[in-house]
Amino acid sequence: MGLKFEIKHKDPQTKARAGKITTDHGEIQTPIFMPVGTAGTVKAVHQRELKEDINADIILGNTYHLYLRPGTEILEKAGGLHKFNGWDRPILTDSGGYQVFSLAQTRKIKEEGVTFRSHIDGSKHLFTPERVMDIQRSIGADIIMAFDECPPYPSDYTYAKNSMQLTHRWLQRCVDRLDETVPLYGHHQALFPIVQGSTYKDLRTQSAEKIASFEREGNAIGGLSVGEPAEMMYEFTELCCDILPEDKPRYLMGVGTPANILENIALGVDMLDCVMPTRQARHGHVFTTQGIMNLKNKKWEDDFEPIDATLGGYASTFYSRSYLRHMFKANEALAGMVASVHNLTFYLWLVREARQHIIDGDFREWKNAIIPTLMQRL
Amino acid sequence: MGLKFEIKHKDPQTKARAGKITTDHGEIQTPIFMPVGTAGTVKAVHQRELKEDINADIILGNTYHLYLRPGTEILEKAGGLHKFNGWDRPILTDSGGYQVFSLAQTRKIKEEGVTFRSHIDGSKHLFTPERVMDIQRSIGADIIMAFDECPPYPSDYTYAKNSMQLTHRWLQRCVDRLDETVPLYGHHQALFPIVQGSTYKDLRTQSAEKIASFEREGNAIGGLSVGEPAEMMYEFTELCCDILPEDKPRYLMGVGTPANILENIALGVDMLDCVMPTRQARHGHVFTTQGIMNLKNKKWEDDFEPIDATLGGYASTFYSRSYLRHMFKANEALAGMVASVHNLTFYLWLVREARQHIIDGDFREWKNAIIPTLMQRL
Repeated sequence: MGLKFEIKHKDPQTKARAGKITTDHGEIQTPIFMPVGTAGTVKAVHQRELKEDINADIILGNTYHLYLRPGTEILEKAGGLHKFNGWDRPILTDSGGYQVFSLAQTRKIKEEGVTFRSHIDGSKHLFTPERVMDIQRSIGADIIMAFDECPPYPSDYTYAKNSMQLTHRWLQRCVDRLDETVPLYGHHQALFPIVQGSTYKDLRTQSAEKIASFEREGNAIGGLSVGEPAEMMYEFTELCCDILPEDKPRYLMGVGTPANILENIALGVDMLDCVMPTRQARHGHVFTTQGIMNLKNKKWEDDFEPIDATLGGYASTFYSRSYLRHMFKANEALAGMVASVHNLTFYLWLVREARQHIIDGDFREWKNAIIPTLMQRL
Repeated sequence: MGLKFEIKHKDPQTKARAGKITTDHGEIQTPIFMPVGTAGTVKAVHQRELKEDINADIILGNTYHLYLRPGTEILEKAGGLHKFNGWDRPILTDSGGYQVFSLAQTRKIKEEGVTFRSHIDGSKHLFTPERVMDIQRSIGADIIMAFDECPPYPSDYTYAKNSMQLTHRWLQRCVDRLDETVPLYGHHQALFPIVQGSTYKDLRTQSAEKIASFEREGNAIGGLSVGEPAEMMYEFTELCCDILPEDKPRYLMGVGTPANILENIALGVDMLDCVMPTRQARHGHVFTTQGIMNLKNKKWEDDFEPIDATLGGYASTFYSRSYLRHMFKANEALAGMVASVHNLTFYLWLVREARQHIIDGDFREWKNAIIPTLMQRL
C-alpha cells in the first residue's frame, strides 16, 4: 500500500501539526526526529537500544555510503537494508546527492548526472537520477529521496538558479524511473522530492511550487542548515512550508540543534534528521533536559549524578557524569556508546514532548519557555 | 565476612574441580572466566550487557590504570569502583605489577618498590607493596593481588631467582600492610599472593610452597602465558596447582585461548582472566562453538547466518556475519561492540559448560572432543 499521512492536531498559535505517517513497516508519529544510520548502523548504538531504549520510529540510511559499501549486490542478497541490519521499522534513505558534493572527490556535474571518485578507494562512479532510483530500490527504504544538487551557502544567484533547474529536471527523471520500476522486497517505497533554490526567495518559491506540482506522497526541504544563520533557515523553512501541500508530510533535511528542531516544527515541519546528536555525543557533548554539557570538562570529575535523571532511561540514568568523564578521558568506547544513546533518547523525547504540547494546545508557550533551558551550557 | 570457597565436585579423571566462591558482592561459580575491565570498563560493553547478556560472575580492574586515571581521590569520593562503574557483583584487581613492567616507561626496580613514568603523561610515580595495598583499598575490589615482579620469558636463572625472592619479600610487606588497614567501604577484601619463578621447576616449587605458607584466602599463578609454549605453561600450571592448597581457589593469571582455558581447568585451576576475547573481538576475531572466525574475511560477505546460532544470546544471533563484516570493513564501532559481547558470552559459556561436565563426570572426554572444534579456523 502507499504511504499514508493523517494530521491529528493543528496547533492554534503556530503552524505546528501532530500527525501520523503509516508505512508498510509501521507507523511514525510526527513531528519526528530520525536518527542517522549512515552505513546501515546508527553509530555506536545497538539495534536493540535503538528500538527499546531510544524507541526511534524511523532511521536514515545513506545511499552514497551503502552503494559504495557493502554495495547493492550484497544488499539485494540480504533482502534489502531492513533484513541486512535487522531494523524492522521504517527506513528513509537520502539520495546521495549531498554526500557526492561533500565527501566524494573530483566530482563533475553534467546534465546526465555526476561522476565522482569514492572517498574510500578512489574508484570512479556515475550517479544519474535513474541510477540513484535503482540503488534505492536495491536498498529498499520505505521513503526514498530524489537525486538533487545541494548548492553550498552562499551561492550566487545564477549558480543557485541553474542548480535548482537541474534538480527539477533530475526530479522528472527520478519520477519516471521510479514509476516504471517496482519495489524489490514487496513493500511500498514513497519518493519525496526536494525543494532547493539556496537563499533566494523567488527561487525557493518556484522550487516549492514545482516540487508540490509532482504530487508525491511527501516533500522535503533541502539545502538549508548548510552554514546560513538560523533566522535565515527559519525564513526559508516557513516560505517552503507555506507552499508545500498541507496534507503531506514535510521533511526538513539535516536539522539540527534542539532549538532548531522546535522552531522548525513551529513552522510546519513534520520530519527532521541530523548527525548532531550522535556526532556530538562522540565528542562528549550531551543534550539534556537541563541544558548542554561537555562531559570532558573537569567540573564533572567528582559529580556522581547521572547525565539526566529527569529524562530517564538506562544510558541517561545508570552511569554517573564522573564515570563518563573518566570514560572520555580514557578514550574508552563506552563513552561514545552511552552519550550516543543518551542524546538520541533526548532528541526523541524532545519531539514527543513537542507532539504532546501540540495536542494539548500549548506548544508555543512550552517551546518559548524551554528553549533557553535546553540551549544553556551547564 | 571473609571469602569462602567450597568444592562441589571433583572430576575423577583430571584435577578439575567445580566450586563456589562467596564474596560480599555475591557468588562466583568456578571454574570461572573473568572479563578484563582495565580502566573500570570492559571495553565496548555496557554494564547491563555484562550482567544480563554475558552474565559475568566477576570482572577485573587494573590497579595501574585506575591509579593513574581517574585516580584514588575520585574512586574514594565515588565510594569505590563498584559504585563508580555501577558493577555490583564481585571485582578483582591486579596489583599493577604486570602493567608497570609492560606499559610504564623508564621503570627502576629497587628493594623499596618500582619507580616508573606514566604511559599517559610521563609523570613519575613510585609503587611499593604498601602503596599498592593502599591503592587497592581505595579501589575496593573483593579480591586484590599482591604486588609482584613478573619476569619476561625467557629469563635467566639468576634473574628469575632474584626476582622471585623479591616478590616473596614484597608479599610479606603486602600482607603486613593489608592486615594493619581496614576496608574503606564495609566489604571484605581478600588478598591473593602470586607464585612466580619463571620456567624453572625448583623456583616454581619454592615459590608455590612459600605462597601457600602465607595461608591467604586464595592463591594465584603469575608469570605464565608470557610467550612460552603452551605445553610448558601446562607443565608449570600443574606443578603449582599440585603444591597450592586444595581447599582454596587457584587463579591462573592472563590465560588464554579456549584450549588453554580448558587444559588449565583440567590441571586444577579455578579462575582465569585474559584480554583475548575483547582484544580479538575488536580485530574481527570471534570464538564460536564451531571454531574461530575472522569476520573481516571476504568469505562472510554474503553469509547471512548469525555468528553463532548454537551459542544463543542477542549479539551472537541478532546480527548476520555479512552485516558484521560490513561493520568491520566500514570501521563502525558496532563491529567491536557486537564481537566483544559475543566473545565474552562464548567464554562464559565455555567455563559453564566445563563446570557442568565436571559435575557430570565426563569433563575429560568432553574437553578432548571439543578442543579441536573450538580451535579450528572457519
